[in-house]
Amino acid sequence: MIRKLIVIGGIAAGLSAVAKAKRLLPDLEVSVYEKSNFASTGACGLPYFVGGNVKKARDLLSLSIEDLRDKRGISVLTGHEVLEIDHAKKTVHVIDHGNNRRFSDIYDDLVIATGAIPIRPSLPNISADGVFFIRTLEDAIALKNAIKNGAKKAVVIGCGFIGLETAEQLAEIGLKVTVVETQPTLLPFFENDYSEMIRQELLKHGVSVELNVTAEEILTIKGVAKGIRLSDGKILQADVILISIGVKPDTSLAKRSGIGQGLRGSILVNNDMRTNLPSIWACGDCVQSYSLITGQPCWVPSGTIANKQGRVAGSNIGGEPATFPGVLGSHVTKIFDLYATTTGLNLAMAQKAGFDAKSTSIVKSDKASYYPGGTDSYISLIFEKKGGRILGAQALGGISIAGRINVLIAAITVGMTVSQLNELDLLYSPSVAPVYDPLLIAAATALKQVVME
Amino acid sequence: MIRKLIVIGGIAAGLSAVAKAKRLLPDLEVSVYEKSNFASTGACGLPYFVGGNVKKARDLLSLSIEDLRDKRGISVLTGHEVLEIDHAKKTVHVIDHGNNRRFSDIYDDLVIATGAIPIRPSLPNISADGVFFIRTLEDAIALKNAIKNGAKKAVVIGCGFIGLETAEQLAEIGLKVTVVETQPTLLPFFENDYSEMIRQELLKHGVSVELNVTAEEILTIKGVAKGIRLSDGKILQADVILISIGVKPDTSLAKRSGIGQGLRGSILVNNDMRTNLPSIWACGDCVQSYSLITGQPCWVPSGTIANKQGRVAGSNIGGEPATFPGVLGSHVTKIFDLYATTTGLNLAMAQKAGFDAKSTSIVKSDKASYYPGGTDSYISLIFEKKGGRILGAQALGGISIAGRINVLIAAITVGMTVSQLNELDLLYSPSVAPVYDPLLIAAATALKQVVME
Repeated sequence: MIRKLIVIGGIAAGLSAVAKAKRLLPDLEVSVYEKSNFASTGACGLPYFVGGNVKKARDLLSLSIEDLRDKRGISVLTGHEVLEIDHAKKTVHVIDHGNNRRFSDIYDDLVIATGAIPIRPSLPNISADGVFFIRTLEDAIALKNAIKNGAKKAVVIGCGFIGLETAEQLAEIGLKVTVVETQPTLLPFFENDYSEMIRQELLKHGVSVELNVTAEEILTIKGVAKGIRLSDGKILQADVILISIGVKPDTSLAKRSGIGQGLRGSILVNNDMRTNLPSIWACGDCVQSYSLITGQPCWVPSGTIANKQGRVAGSNIGGEPATFPGVLGSHVTKIFDLYATTTGLNLAMAQKAGFDAKSTSIVKSDKASYYPGGTDSYISLIFEKKGGRILGAQALGGISIAGRINVLIAAITVGMTVSQLNELDLLYSPSVAPVYDPLLIAAATALKQVVME
Repeated sequence: MIRKLIVIGGIAAGLSAVAKAKRLLPDLEVSVYEKSNFASTGACGLPYFVGGNVKKARDLLSLSIEDLRDKRGISVLTGHEVLEIDHAKKTVHVIDHGNNRRFSDIYDDLVIATGAIPIRPSLPNISADGVFFIRTLEDAIALKNAIKNGAKKAVVIGCGFIGLETAEQLAEIGLKVTVVETQPTLLPFFENDYSEMIRQELLKHGVSVELNVTAEEILTIKGVAKGIRLSDGKILQADVILISIGVKPDTSLAKRSGIGQGLRGSILVNNDMRTNLPSIWACGDCVQSYSLITGQPCWVPSGTIANKQGRVAGSNIGGEPATFPGVLGSHVTKIFDLYATTTGLNLAMAQKAGFDAKSTSIVKSDKASYYPGGTDSYISLIFEKKGGRILGAQALGGISIAGRINVLIAAITVGMTVSQLNELDLLYSPSVAPVYDPLLIAAATALKQVVME
């Protein structure tokens, strides 16, 4: 008998799972039910679609539904929501929103890859016209249409990565943008002076920044948003209001189906992506992960992690055992000419996790001092005082900073110390690095604080 | 009694040694004897000085002689050549070329940091006007003057990194440049198809390339070089002829002083930079190193390694024990818009060293496919078939390729396998990487060839 795999969610994790399982078991019958009207596109590209760097929505799709069907034998049904999972009967109950038709489908294996959804604040008039989220392609199309229809002023409430990237893109296409953040700093897991450099970069490019204030009300005229009122009484006029205060796992279906929960309502999975219920797997932004450094549960929504977890689930379904090793929590974002990136623990997280941790910050050009076009690299290393094991890093700089943090990602993953980092035989040429790479300068500086056992 | 340190050679290794020793022992008396008329400048920046990207020779100097004296208490005597080392009497015999004065000086510790010198082929008329090398600042100034005086056509014989970088710079300022290489490929340690891409990049920017031919004669008129005759009979006209067929350790002084020799005439040192003679240390381009992968002797001239070895020597002289861990052999060069980089072993070297090695090559954009401005990254991984330990890598691409090879440098140093590389939680954002970083694609591709034990 042919095995049947049902996947709930047709974005990164779900499609990776099904693609991998199908490669291992070419005869596998598969159905992917995707609630939205688009499959295969994650949130990461949406700011650049809004800003016009990505011309067509189609370009964001890694594979079209037709390609998935014709080239991979994978049937993706968009506009199809799974309402219930009956794990005893291995059955899902589905509604096809397009035709308002309900039906059931029986699985041998089920993958839940429902992702994450934006957090909606309880803000008066949040449902008014002109208020946007940015999570799905529909969201981005709606926002883009508002701009096409003449929106000139935007307020972005909350400043996660996607919020800041969208703020940048809106400013690039000529909107007057203000970012509003409840915390006293931007991207608060960054050290204060790095946050301040990000704020300066926004200001330099005409984006206003309101810190330490909360949006209290969306102001409307005839049901259309016209601005917001802040907790300090200030009124910001806006034609579009983008709410980007973070996301949470989309797990209401999993919860009501009796699937075990982890941190922040995420789905609890083993490192093979198995849930507590037989033949039900979960992966992507809806599941809990574990820190590679502390081993503690964490929840890190990320397109690349979702893809990897999906591949692990698909591999196990296909009979090739695989495990997901855990996450460091690595992020990078571009804000105009500044790239901001972080991996592992910041100092506060490290100390909270029980490490006797120290941090050190350096600044160094990313090319030889005499070579034209160098950009300052700011690197902050977090490490154990005893022995010097590297626990995390934060950095700001030109695009080269991403490669340098990737080196630290490799280093942290294998438990490298600052002393070992200091000895790496890194590349040198005037056009790509100074004689002592910024990473080596950071390591040498950190080493002075390390106590050897 | 005050200790006296004498350093022979005032470039990267020598100045690093003396700076480190002086930091540890502030009362140390030091003299640095530098044969040339400039201290503190290595070869790496010279092509960019010739090309005008670095405006003034002074900009190439990390520290001026005045700064070294006034800020660091280090006396650097240029134009001073050490003719003899009498290790029994701990004495060096010096000639001050400027004043044609000979004198002796007594040391407690001696550091030999004489670097490397260009290999001179036995080519008729090699001493003619218009024939240049590029190793010292004097060399670069002479070449630059020839251009200022109207040189229009250049031939570069040999294509090491500095040769190709100078060819690029000469073309950038409008000279008609031809590169001549004896081997059938450019940068022959690269795989053939990567060599071919480098050739295409040169051709695209107007640089002619003659492979598989040898320069047989420099053609002169009245003692002035006017071109070269190649082994295939072809005549290349040229106003300047740059010979860049490689360098060799500058160790004639060490040799005649009874100091033990290693590969290719380099100086044999322990990992603390000690030679076979008491109180005599050596570091930089004149010494033999050891491969971090095979443990075998190798000789890798490099400004960054020279600096690090100098620091190790200085640290040991200053009483703070240090060792130099060895080299991977990491290189990067920019050729117009292409960055070419390598680390560790190539396939032939790995097989010669006794590894059952495989290689795999991939190409992948360095940004999300839909994000504008992505550049293809070509990565070739060399790894052990059994277990998948990474042994080396070669890569071509935009500037981002340097950061990716640095990740592999960290990986190779700690003995990481392609399977571990495949699991790294690398950065992802459309502006800096695709969902699966090129490194992860390379790892996944390599993994298919790995046999697990």
